[in-house]
Amino acid sequence: MRPWKRGDRPLHAPARAWKRRPRIRPGTLPGTLAHDAAAPPARVSLIRFAHDSFDEREVSVDEAVAAFAPGGVTWINVDGLDATVLKRLGEAFGLHPLALEDALDVPQRPKAERYEKHYFLVLHALRLVDGALTDEQVSVFFGERWIITIQERIEDETFGAVRAAIRHGRGRTREAGADYLAYLLLDSVIDAYFPIIETIGERMSVLEQEIVGTAATTECLLKIQQIRHELLALRRAVWPTREEVAALMRDESGLVAPETRVFLRDAYDHGVQALEIVESERETATSIMEIYLSTQNQRLNEVMKVLTVISTLFIPLTFIASIYGMNFEAMPELKWRFGYTSALGLMAVTAAGLVAYFKRRGWW
Amino acid sequence: MRPWKRGDRPLHAPARAWKRRPRIRPGTLPGTLAHDAAAPPARVSLIRFAHDSFDEREVSVDEAVAAFAPGGVTWINVDGLDATVLKRLGEAFGLHPLALEDALDVPQRPKAERYEKHYFLVLHALRLVDGALTDEQVSVFFGERWIITIQERIEDETFGAVRAAIRHGRGRTREAGADYLAYLLLDSVIDAYFPIIETIGERMSVLEQEIVGTAATTECLLKIQQIRHELLALRRAVWPTREEVAALMRDESGLVAPETRVFLRDAYDHGVQALEIVESERETATSIMEIYLSTQNQRLNEVMKVLTVISTLFIPLTFIASIYGMNFEAMPELKWRFGYTSALGLMAVTAAGLVAYFKRRGWW
Amino acid sequence: MRPWKRGDRPLHAPARAWKRRPRIRPGTLPGTLAHDAAAPPARVSLIRFAHDSFDEREVSVDEAVAAFAPGGVTWINVDGLDATVLKRLGEAFGLHPLALEDALDVPQRPKAERYEKHYFLVLHALRLVDGALTDEQVSVFFGERWIITIQERIEDETFGAVRAAIRHGRGRTREAGADYLAYLLLDSVIDAYFPIIETIGERMSVLEQEIVGTAATTECLLKIQQIRHELLALRRAVWPTREEVAALMRDESGLVAPETRVFLRDAYDHGVQALEIVESERETATSIMEIYLSTQNQRLNEVMKVLTVISTLFIPLTFIASIYGMNFEAMPELKWRFGYTSALGLMAVTAAGLVAYFKRRGWW
Amino acid sequence: MRPWKRGDRPLHAPARAWKRRPRIRPGTLPGTLAHDAAAPPARVSLIRFAHDSFDEREVSVDEAVAAFAPGGVTWINVDGLDATVLKRLGEAFGLHPLALEDALDVPQRPKAERYEKHYFLVLHALRLVDGALTDEQVSVFFGERWIITIQERIEDETFGAVRAAIRHGRGRTREAGADYLAYLLLDSVIDAYFPIIETIGERMSVLEQEIVGTAATTECLLKIQQIRHELLALRRAVWPTREEVAALMRDESGLVAPETRVFLRDAYDHGVQALEIVESERETATSIMEIYLSTQNQRLNEVMKVLTVISTLFIPLTFIASIYGMNFEAMPELKWRFGYTSALGLMAVTAAGLVAYFKRRGWW
Amino acid sequence: MRPWKRGDRPLHAPARAWKRRPRIRPGTLPGTLAHDAAAPPARVSLIRFAHDSFDEREVSVDEAVAAFAPGGVTWINVDGLDATVLKRLGEAFGLHPLALEDALDVPQRPKAERYEKHYFLVLHALRLVDGALTDEQVSVFFGERWIITIQERIEDETFGAVRAAIRHGRGRTREAGADYLAYLLLDSVIDAYFPIIETIGERMSVLEQEIVGTAATTECLLKIQQIRHELLALRRAVWPTREEVAALMRDESGLVAPETRVFLRDAYDHGVQALEIVESERETATSIMEIYLSTQNQRLNEVMKVLTVISTLFIPLTFIASIYGMNFEAMPELKWRFGYTSALGLMAVTAAGLVAYFKRRGWW
Repeated sequence: MRPWKRGDRPLHAPARAWKRRPRIRPGTLPGTLAHDAAAPPARVSLIRFAHDSFDEREVSVDEAVAAFAPGGVTWINVDGLDATVLKRLGEAFGLHPLALEDALDVPQRPKAERYEKHYFLVLHALRLVDGALTDEQVSVFFGERWIITIQERIEDETFGAVRAAIRHGRGRTREAGADYLAYLLLDSVIDAYFPIIETIGERMSVLEQEIVGTAATTECLLKIQQIRHELLALRRAVWPTREEVAALMRDESGLVAPETRVFLRDAYDHGVQALEIVESERETATSIMEIYLSTQNQRLNEVMKVLTVISTLFIPLTFIASIYGMNFEAMPELKWRFGYTSALGLMAVTAAGLVAYFKRRGWW
Repeated sequence: MRPWKRGDRPLHAPARAWKRRPRIRPGTLPGTLAHDAAAPPARVSLIRFAHDSFDEREVSVDEAVAAFAPGGVTWINVDGLDATVLKRLGEAFGLHPLALEDALDVPQRPKAERYEKHYFLVLHALRLVDGALTDEQVSVFFGERWIITIQERIEDETFGAVRAAIRHGRGRTREAGADYLAYLLLDSVIDAYFPIIETIGERMSVLEQEIVGTAATTECLLKIQQIRHELLALRRAVWPTREEVAALMRDESGLVAPETRVFLRDAYDHGVQALEIVESERETATSIMEIYLSTQNQRLNEVMKVLTVISTLFIPLTFIASIYGMNFEAMPELKWRFGYTSALGLMAVTAAGLVAYFKRRGWW
Repeated sequence: MRPWKRGDRPLHAPARAWKRRPRIRPGTLPGTLAHDAAAPPARVSLIRFAHDSFDEREVSVDEAVAAFAPGGVTWINVDGLDATVLKRLGEAFGLHPLALEDALDVPQRPKAERYEKHYFLVLHALRLVDGALTDEQVSVFFGERWIITIQERIEDETFGAVRAAIRHGRGRTREAGADYLAYLLLDSVIDAYFPIIETIGERMSVLEQEIVGTAATTECLLKIQQIRHELLALRRAVWPTREEVAALMRDESGLVAPETRVFLRDAYDHGVQALEIVESERETATSIMEIYLSTQNQRLNEVMKVLTVISTLFIPLTFIASIYGMNFEAMPELKWRFGYTSALGLMAVTAAGLVAYFKRRGWW
Repeated sequence: MRPWKRGDRPLHAPARAWKRRPRIRPGTLPGTLAHDAAAPPARVSLIRFAHDSFDEREVSVDEAVAAFAPGGVTWINVDGLDATVLKRLGEAFGLHPLALEDALDVPQRPKAERYEKHYFLVLHALRLVDGALTDEQVSVFFGERWIITIQERIEDETFGAVRAAIRHGRGRTREAGADYLAYLLLDSVIDAYFPIIETIGERMSVLEQEIVGTAATTECLLKIQQIRHELLALRRAVWPTREEVAALMRDESGLVAPETRVFLRDAYDHGVQALEIVESERETATSIMEIYLSTQNQRLNEVMKVLTVISTLFIPLTFIASIYGMNFEAMPELKWRFGYTSALGLMAVTAAGLVAYFKRRGWW
Repeated sequence: MRPWKRGDRPLHAPARAWKRRPRIRPGTLPGTLAHDAAAPPARVSLIRFAHDSFDEREVSVDEAVAAFAPGGVTWINVDGLDATVLKRLGEAFGLHPLALEDALDVPQRPKAERYEKHYFLVLHALRLVDGALTDEQVSVFFGERWIITIQERIEDETFGAVRAAIRHGRGRTREAGADYLAYLLLDSVIDAYFPIIETIGERMSVLEQEIVGTAATTECLLKIQQIRHELLALRRAVWPTREEVAALMRDESGLVAPETRVFLRDAYDHGVQALEIVESERETATSIMEIYLSTQNQRLNEVMKVLTVISTLFIPLTFIASIYGMNFEAMPELKWRFGYTSALGLMAVTAAGLVAYFKRRGWW
């Protein structure tokens, strides 16, 4: 596996999903494929299968183009964003330059665009890497019996399960066409949102425990804000993905078979579910924020109350003591036999009275 | 009644409705029915009725399938999620694999999906168990004169009233077809939301009393947040259920008779009502939260005010005393006959002045 | 006038509009009319009128049914919810059981439902009774030349003005049909919202004055919340009523004459106006809440500031005094002739300096 | 110019726009024109113009009705709400009673209603009178070649510019028909919103300066709330006015000429712009509110901090002094030669240490 | 380059985007082009190109009009708002007076208006000048093979890249018609939003660092509010621009070629992306605001806590000292040999006890 990097984002430090911004370059003409000299050559792999055959190998882009033949379904997978490879595939399969540009200028929003001879899908595969939500764009082109997928990173295993299912001919994977394969990819991307959602949910539970149980620190606040950012990033991925599925369901080009639609409806349903949980977790995050602010306040208030109670207790006592610290010549109490004891007694009574009063008011 | 459990959710500790998450397993092919070895066999019961006949017994799944015959309506009820039983029923009645998967992978969102030969409904029966909102998915398949219901838990009595109505031939229950029966089930699920809504409303009243009357504690805050979660869970159940009813009303397959639609409109109306009260209770919860925060603040403020007033009263007095505690040789007051009395008088006057001032400002 | 009560709601203590909940009884079959044995018999009155005739009397339900004859318009008004009367009317006029159930199981949402031979309207007549917003459901059934109204309470005078207008043949009340009469009822219900809205607006003005002028108490907070609840209840009544009018305007059954539609448009307009003012009052309520919280805060802050300023003034002075209260043998100042005067002067200077500083900072 | 008043609103104290409420009188029949005996007679003026002629004079209502003749456009303007005049015009031009009622029962919402033979427009002319946003309803009826405008107040100059443009035959004002004239009136009402919006914007700038620069007082809070009310009133005027223009654009009656539509689109655009700025000013108002609350808080915090720092500085010093104020016989320090100096030194060192600590923590 | 100014906005101090208000002049007739005597004459430049030809020069407006000839595309660019030039162009190309007025009365909202023979587009070119978001309106008229652009400022280089692309015949710029050129202008305006969005995002990161790291000052608050204003201004520019693109996509006049639509879809997509990031940055701004308020609070709380802890520690100690400062004759402790030491010990023990207590409670 060859290490490489593209722009400022090295292979093993993928960009945080919620800080990722599209690289629109003002001043360039639409449809321009900018060649990134620093990028290593992409890795191209080919899967060809029919009802009873299966072939999988690593190839060059020219071999891939040459291997496409009627009968069966051809799946060309490109790992790495390489303008040369994309141009070559674009010429061979008639991919639209604007779509190719979007495949190269990551990230784009999830979307399903229909061009004359093919569909262009943008998927966002989200993962938690070292606890941080990261994001990879997967571009999918599919037409009549062929499908091309372009992944940002080389070592990605996003579609491992789909590949295995075809390899072992599970279910109807080998019977159906490129549209069903595209559905499987979409479905696996959507399904992968759920473990992430669950992890975030668990983190929020832990955070809530912390906030209620012990002192709420600024770190907690930042953690909540981070989670809210991540939920927003999830939402921004899930919402348009759901719309994308809906667009495929409404297809009128004939590239999506009627049998595939019932599966798309299922994927749509998963999208709705994901969205719903994300929304509900956003509400939870807000509610944790409220609890944080409230307990933070309450804890301080308690501290201040105790401290003020202590001060308030001693200030009158000190006042009594200071009276008998005055140097007047004519202070009869000073000469009393039990003057001192009486003063101490007065103080004790005052203190007891104050404590009783505080207790009655519930401040002690 | 056989005790059993499925996954991490034992029979007598049903999952809290607002923490329940769908079990999407990334990497599995759509339409896969995962067999859960730990689950006990499901219990299958059969009801067959026509205008003038009624038959109800506990059967095996094969008996149930064999018993289906034209004339009358056949209702097969399955208690417990058992992949084997579902597969058998799926083959016999032509149930779609994706629908079967949704019946097994609980919870799904409430929805009405039309397949070629049948409808698939997901219902969410909510109950308050030991004060906690719990949730059971009920999956309903219905076609021409047959209906299959699948419940998560064995001991559930969700549809007891409907069963009794058929048993005693009340109303038009025996005249109508499977669609009317499906409506009755939907209706009984929706109607069961109302007592829950009412209970939550009462809890909020109690909570409001507590907050206004006595000290607001962190526990109150957590209770409000819990109620808000539950209301959100209710909303998430009610909203799509209402949409589900609307989808059945718009049916074009002929599986829903025109006579049934006016009843569905009634159920829809109940759904709207439920939603409206839930929304209004959500507003109430927010308003209780506001009252909580405000009274919590106000109470602390009162404490601080009283304490500060006490300190402020004694500090000037102590100052006067400390003046006459100075050891200057030439302090004529010290030698005055009524020096001490004058000093005490000055203190009394000062204290009275301060108290008067505080009273005039309304701080005392 | 016979006193009576129904369920837990006596005649003279009508339920608060914003706490009223529909009585859905889970487990009953749809269309069941529950007989409430405790309810007194309803009072039935009959109005029959044509262009040149008018007849008004109190009758039994059987007389009412018998009196219905072609020509002119027949208006049967039922005061009190009595299952027997409703059943009888239902049979005579072909009223749908679900509509009858809704007329009995108050409160329902305002709605206009079209059945085969008649319309069913639910109206909510709101009134301020002893300052509390109360609510009465009025159910209206109307068909070709007949109209039936069912009111919850017996002594209600909701439709007095409409009755008087017909009695004296004002305007076109006697020319038009049952649809125009239904419009008049709707209109009088909607117009009755305006004085309520105005009263709430005035209350808010008073409350705002109170909050800005004097100390904001917890009672103010509860009053605002109460007003917000009432506004929400109003909104929940007005919004669907407006939709109800819109539904009648879109009528395709022919039961609503084209001439009536321009009047319905006017009623719709009033509904929009009412809604708009309610919304604006809701904003005002929020803004009063904000003012409340802010002034409450500001007042406390002022108190704390003054108190702290006093303490801060005296603490340094006390410090000076305590220095000369030390018992060192070698303290030359103590022996100075003007030592005491100097010390007092030092205190005065310090105090003056602090006061000047506080004044310059704007704290005094 | 005759002084007069209507109801509780004298001529020179026009109602504040955001407190104005419609005068719906429950219990009156729709279409009733209530005669207000206290109102002075209205002033009627007539403008007749064609391509090459122009005639303008003050007339009685009967003269106005008589003067209407085919050819050219007739504009009857009524200043003052006078039921008699409206009735007379209603009979002559076939104005609908409901529309006449709306013209008399001010204020109504801005709206465009199409009746059989004419349009009825409600406009809201807003002005700032002595800094307060006031509102006048202008009712416009227009049909084929005639237009009637009814203004609430007599001295109003709302349409002075339009009148002047016709008088001098500027632009295409004399070529076009009554619809174009109606557009001009609408346009002049909408354009008059902009100076108001700008004035409110400037007030907010001043307020923001005040809040940031000096002490934020409760008065500031009330001013912000007042501005928010005014913005809401503006929004309530602008939003339906825009919809009104849209309704005219969609006209199907033929009363609005196709050439006029492009002008209406322009007016619509102005409406959208006005709305957008109002919305943006609402956001600004909210943000000023936030700044107000935050700076108010921060200022108090600063005060409290300084005061507390002072107290905290002197309390330990006083403690030291009070130690040497104790009267123990055996206190060696008291006899030291430099005891006093040492104590003062200890105090100085303590104070310096505290100040240094406070400075390091950034509290000084 | 000639320096000039228009109204109150000099050339080198462009108006802040979020404070810019449209100059609607109430009282003027629609379609009036107000001549601004202070404005210097505009600069007109002409580009003519066909597949194989290219011509670019600075001309007078009459030369520009004369140069328009069939074949190829004519692009007339006007720098500066000059009523005379616009009138001349309006006559020559049949531009609608309302559109011309909008080109002169800047700023208008971004919009695409179709007139009989041409489209009228309003674009908003945003830039960051000295860190402040500024805004220039660009008006675009395009018809069959001609395009006219009007820019507010003379030195603007908004379309430099497009001009260069045509000059060097890059891509299909020379093949396509005026609609494609209009698209290129739109696209370059939209793409220019992205660097601005990114800069604002970076500023927010810096601000967040500042707020979390050091003391949050009022300046931070104002900066956040400023950023929020700018984001709102961005949103107000991007949202209608996106709608503008959508309007062109739906064109039915034939002025927009079908081939151009796929490019417009791409531009639309960029608009959606921009909007999405702006929305997400608005959320981030809100979250920074929350962090600001929370940390500001927390920091003060910490200060108050420490100070109060110090006071609370010394007040009891001072009390002890003041007891032994009393002048009673009969105070046995005073005569003890180790009285003083004991007193000091008592103080030390008390202090230690308090510190231990504070530590245990986590307040130290």
